[in-house]
Amino acid sequence: MASKSAPIWTDASSDLLKVTRGFVLGTVDPGSTPGFTGDKTDAQTVGRTAAESLAHQQEMLFANSREGDQRKVLLILQGMDTSGKGGIVRHVLGAVDPQGVSHVAFKAPTAAELRHDFLWRIRRQLPVAGMIGVFDRSHYEDVLIGRVRQLAPPEEIEKRYDLINAFEQELVDDDTTVIKVMLHISAGEQKKRLLERLDRPDKYWKFNPGDIDERMLWPGYQAAYQTALKRTSTAFAPWHVVPADRKWFARLAVQQLLLKALDDMVLTWPPADFDVLAERARLAAS
Amino acid sequence: MASKSAPIWTDASSDLLKVTRGFVLGTVDPGSTPGFTGDKTDAQTVGRTAAESLAHQQEMLFANSREGDQRKVLLILQGMDTSGKGGIVRHVLGAVDPQGVSHVAFKAPTAAELRHDFLWRIRRQLPVAGMIGVFDRSHYEDVLIGRVRQLAPPEEIEKRYDLINAFEQELVDDDTTVIKVMLHISAGEQKKRLLERLDRPDKYWKFNPGDIDERMLWPGYQAAYQTALKRTSTAFAPWHVVPADRKWFARLAVQQLLLKALDDMVLTWPPADFDVLAERARLAAS
Repeated sequence: MASKSAPIWTDASSDLLKVTRGFVLGTVDPGSTPGFTGDKTDAQTVGRTAAESLAHQQEMLFANSREGDQRKVLLILQGMDTSGKGGIVRHVLGAVDPQGVSHVAFKAPTAAELRHDFLWRIRRQLPVAGMIGVFDRSHYEDVLIGRVRQLAPPEEIEKRYDLINAFEQELVDDDTTVIKVMLHISAGEQKKRLLERLDRPDKYWKFNPGDIDERMLWPGYQAAYQTALKRTSTAFAPWHVVPADRKWFARLAVQQLLLKALDDMVLTWPPADFDVLAERARLAAS
Repeated sequence: MASKSAPIWTDASSDLLKVTRGFVLGTVDPGSTPGFTGDKTDAQTVGRTAAESLAHQQEMLFANSREGDQRKVLLILQGMDTSGKGGIVRHVLGAVDPQGVSHVAFKAPTAAELRHDFLWRIRRQLPVAGMIGVFDRSHYEDVLIGRVRQLAPPEEIEKRYDLINAFEQELVDDDTTVIKVMLHISAGEQKKRLLERLDRPDKYWKFNPGDIDERMLWPGYQAAYQTALKRTSTAFAPWHVVPADRKWFARLAVQQLLLKALDDMVLTWPPADFDVLAERARLAAS
């Protein structure tokens, strides 16, 4: 049992991040740590235990899939450049057996992908039973950069919100737990992180001059996020907005959201689908 | 610098594992630790440092791919059931950023896959530039279980060795470093590990009655391995036989083989392909 002073993460903490009716992105402080009273060191303590739990739960999810259980998890990560999507993958998913994680980073669509519906390339990368799929960017780009850069006519963009909701309903009906996370950073923090990429030769490769072009469109992106969050945070696939100016908080929060999704599955080890005693006898004789 | 008594892994250790002319599988003791004088604790000490190195080198490999470098690594793991292929993935590749690892476990081919050449499904899963691809089983199954179970006519199996060599030459020409590892366990150790799966309810899911059927064909499999090792250990894609009765040794050896492959690439951080000062000024003004 936790002592009364040790900061913990509760289900209520997760709920605080959920996007519900009346949500306004502009009122969320990217530097805040809603639902967690501890500091970085406390977060690391909570995180270490959670990492073991996550690895254990994922193995059970995988084990059950071998026996026909169709359940899988899809974690969708969105956020402005430098918001820490890659760090989440490295630090949170890094604790899980690589055999149980299927990671996809969606870039600008190729010419071949553009000849299909925007969901076509997404469908091809969906996690199979037993897996935790992680999308670093996703179909949401088609209502984010797609909207801000006017990559499609407004009436086409408009249709996509409903198409996305219908698509995600399909995923849920197919036993997918969909966890949607927006990593929310401030413009000031982004400037600091981009500057670091320009100051350190080991970070140059992460920098793209186009990042500054996108940065110039900050208000447009915030507005596109607000619309997307409002239109696509459903009961079956809600959005979570995770304040991300403090990396340690964002990592803790996403780890806990993932862990809660697995806990809610009430996983156990699958029973033997063979006669244990008979197999033991066959083995002894071999 | 290592003190004179601290056991280390050297290039000579890696060479000891290489399959060269005159190699006889039956003479390799699965319980041995060739090229390493230390024990499990020493291996863990060496392994911790190597894990950090591996993560660092992989990030540089990935970074360079962003600038057009086509290099990638393919680690092929083969071995009898329970030889520890999954453990290698979890423990060795688990230290690397999940974004840089593409893992594929090849099962019995599907009906659709069987309508193609045996290399078809393999080609579709090859790692792209910047990645470490890991194959848990591979095209070698088609000359292992394929041969032992006579899943194809002998003359067809016979042709596959040359087809495999030609295929792997193609991979090497496409800037792939191919690392082939056979995890070599003894029949006694396998019995112990299978028994553990029958004794522990949290391991039942890993057990398949078919594993014992395959075990009954042990000498046939050893002969098929001997032939495959002899026919496909080439200068450009040599095999390594890693004694695997001691899991700590197998993990250390594979980690070191991987690390050596990356070291041999002499990776550095790619230079900026933009004007750092100009970008810094644009950022400051944004």
